[in-house]
Amino acid sequence: MFGGLIRLGLAGLGTVGAGLAKILVSNADWIERRLGRRVVIKTALVRNPDKARDLPPDLNILLTADMKDLLDDPELDIIVELMGGLDAPFALISAALTQGKPVVTANKALLAERGNELFSLAAEHGTALYYEASVAGGIPIVQVLKESLAGNRIKALTGILNGTANYILTEMTVRGLDFQTALEQAQTKGYAEADPTLDIQGMDAAHKLILLIRLAYGRDYPLAQLPVQGITQVNPLDILFAGEFGYCIKLIAQVRESQGGLDAGVFTALVRRDDILGKVDGPFNAVLVEGNAVGPLMLYGQGAGDLPTGSAVLADIMALARSDCNPNNTGFPETVLPKAEILAPDLVRSRHYFRFSVLDRPGVLAVIAGVLGQRNISIAQAVQKGLPSGRNVPVVFITHTAQVRNVRAAVEEINAQSFITAPTVHYRIL
Amino acid sequence: MFGGLIRLGLAGLGTVGAGLAKILVSNADWIERRLGRRVVIKTALVRNPDKARDLPPDLNILLTADMKDLLDDPELDIIVELMGGLDAPFALISAALTQGKPVVTANKALLAERGNELFSLAAEHGTALYYEASVAGGIPIVQVLKESLAGNRIKALTGILNGTANYILTEMTVRGLDFQTALEQAQTKGYAEADPTLDIQGMDAAHKLILLIRLAYGRDYPLAQLPVQGITQVNPLDILFAGEFGYCIKLIAQVRESQGGLDAGVFTALVRRDDILGKVDGPFNAVLVEGNAVGPLMLYGQGAGDLPTGSAVLADIMALARSDCNPNNTGFPETVLPKAEILAPDLVRSRHYFRFSVLDRPGVLAVIAGVLGQRNISIAQAVQKGLPSGRNVPVVFITHTAQVRNVRAAVEEINAQSFITAPTVHYRIL
Repeated sequence: MFGGLIRLGLAGLGTVGAGLAKILVSNADWIERRLGRRVVIKTALVRNPDKARDLPPDLNILLTADMKDLLDDPELDIIVELMGGLDAPFALISAALTQGKPVVTANKALLAERGNELFSLAAEHGTALYYEASVAGGIPIVQVLKESLAGNRIKALTGILNGTANYILTEMTVRGLDFQTALEQAQTKGYAEADPTLDIQGMDAAHKLILLIRLAYGRDYPLAQLPVQGITQVNPLDILFAGEFGYCIKLIAQVRESQGGLDAGVFTALVRRDDILGKVDGPFNAVLVEGNAVGPLMLYGQGAGDLPTGSAVLADIMALARSDCNPNNTGFPETVLPKAEILAPDLVRSRHYFRFSVLDRPGVLAVIAGVLGQRNISIAQAVQKGLPSGRNVPVVFITHTAQVRNVRAAVEEINAQSFITAPTVHYRIL
Repeated sequence: MFGGLIRLGLAGLGTVGAGLAKILVSNADWIERRLGRRVVIKTALVRNPDKARDLPPDLNILLTADMKDLLDDPELDIIVELMGGLDAPFALISAALTQGKPVVTANKALLAERGNELFSLAAEHGTALYYEASVAGGIPIVQVLKESLAGNRIKALTGILNGTANYILTEMTVRGLDFQTALEQAQTKGYAEADPTLDIQGMDAAHKLILLIRLAYGRDYPLAQLPVQGITQVNPLDILFAGEFGYCIKLIAQVRESQGGLDAGVFTALVRRDDILGKVDGPFNAVLVEGNAVGPLMLYGQGAGDLPTGSAVLADIMALARSDCNPNNTGFPETVLPKAEILAPDLVRSRHYFRFSVLDRPGVLAVIAGVLGQRNISIAQAVQKGLPSGRNVPVVFITHTAQVRNVRAAVEEINAQSFITAPTVHYRIL
């Protein structure tokens, strides 16, 4: 594709950009051995070129605040977008693609919101738009879905895609912390940002899931239609009860083929401790893919951080350096992916966990069991324990497979009973 | 690369070949959607074309016993070698590469033994020799090392690469079976072949490790120099003791950078139950890679079987169908990989597990501890238990890091003591 040297135009020198710069310096000889050529950052677009930066000393990067210095430089071989945000990166990436210049990005939000436009533009100009770093940091799930599993029909894909949320839930489980304390600890340790909203409310995982649905199914699933739940409501009591049944609680991003449509969403769910996904603890990410040929395949690794994410950016850069023909952007030859057939969330079938908060008086269990039975929700396991609080007790049920529509209706009916002391908690079970 | 249809010449219609055929039929429309073209097996080389076969009915494969029908047919786009063995596949693959025809193979033994010759031939004729299915079945570790982790220095790679051995060890652990009973059960259930020698003696894992060393380090590690141990000697007693310390016993294939060389081998080792690798049970395979940028990354899946392995073969076929430029065979531009700097096995440093079988009399522990101390082997944990057998007792030590040279010398010295009733068992600890 290029001459001897590969020159990058890098937009953004934050955590990931600086991580990429570090890897390019520390592994320079190795990268040259792999490629037969060196990779350098020629120009970097930053907000403030005069700010002091902690970069490797032998880098000789031209810092600029003007996007034109990236777009108008014919010497740049690849544009690497690591600035974050939506409008500025859209302007940069679309201008680069229109010039036929290959682009590497880690911007999951942008691709989830406006991926269709950008992939169309890339196809129109016959150039590459690569994004390995946009999902699950260092885990090469984009490449695996685009290439390695391309011949598989994907029956289901289940991910732990947000390290912050997984770290918080793990700390709540292992140390018995409540959500707020665990969040503060995650912030102290650098596993959560000062504003953790996107992570703890599930939207970061939702962005990634939209990209994975495209790669696995070749379908466009509008972000606005994706059911998204976070972890802010998770109660330590439910972690305890789940543990008694052999489950842990995880923030799950899942898509699966069901009843002729795609059942997709981000939600807090119970996962069996014995399952390989139940062992994914702390800030780690994992993606479990069920292919109709390969069977279950899981990838596990660091989903964030300067070097792991930089490693994924570098993978795309090296792939582009190696080959100049037929960029494989979406994993499908189509320029625009068709819309997904979306299974109505009400029709989703799943096992469920219920915790009813009830007054401890005769007949309560019979009423609850009666409502569940009328809604075709059959109980697999139950726990009732007296708590020190006295008359106010939790009743916990694990059900067999039931339809969400029925679960919602049953919860509504039971919540209206006079013996209910707090809204009923219910989670899906994987 | 090709016209509308991709025509395969397939050598071998055994388990994997039939698996590939099944996937090509069941996923035909999906593969066409991914590639924009169909993939069919035109001709298959088999030992006996007249034998009855259980193949999908709508396949229309020309069966032949003559290799020339593959080599002389200009309509064939890719040669797929799934016959196994060494000489016949070498003849077929080298003839195809010489014609400039791309080849896909699952033949780990051939690539481990004669990969250098074949990769040189492929480079000379500018064509592809792909082999995703040769390591860990459906797990795309070849692609991940060649592409996704190409910019990483690999500090260590640790694999559970043989599903038969892992299944047997898991059954010994979970059900307390002895080796022979577990092996027979594995044969009954189809997890072990009638002749399981390659699997249980570690040679199958050794073949795979040689290929992984090439991909991770770009070095040729001669198979004959690789230390290889199997699992036939594993005693249920050691599984029990390992369990008491929180470990399980696994057949491990590992390579790591150590003291300026590569420390590589296939060996039975203790793995912490809490480590993600310690959760890999039954017939599953896993590869844990430690990159200097990506950190720990694990891939987990089915390492054998018709459909998982067929899935990996198909991944190579589709990669070739997608791109005709710059085949990336070894992951390095060099035609011949340099020899590895091999760390002498005696210099390997590791923690160790010892089980001494001793007569239960005063002073025994002092002698053992004295010999270990003289050899710079320091004890981290110890267990001694009386057993029903009376005077003959096991003494178990877990050590801190020690050099294999010292461990061997200490074991030799201790085995010569009059209180030793059986040869000392020792394993590395990961």
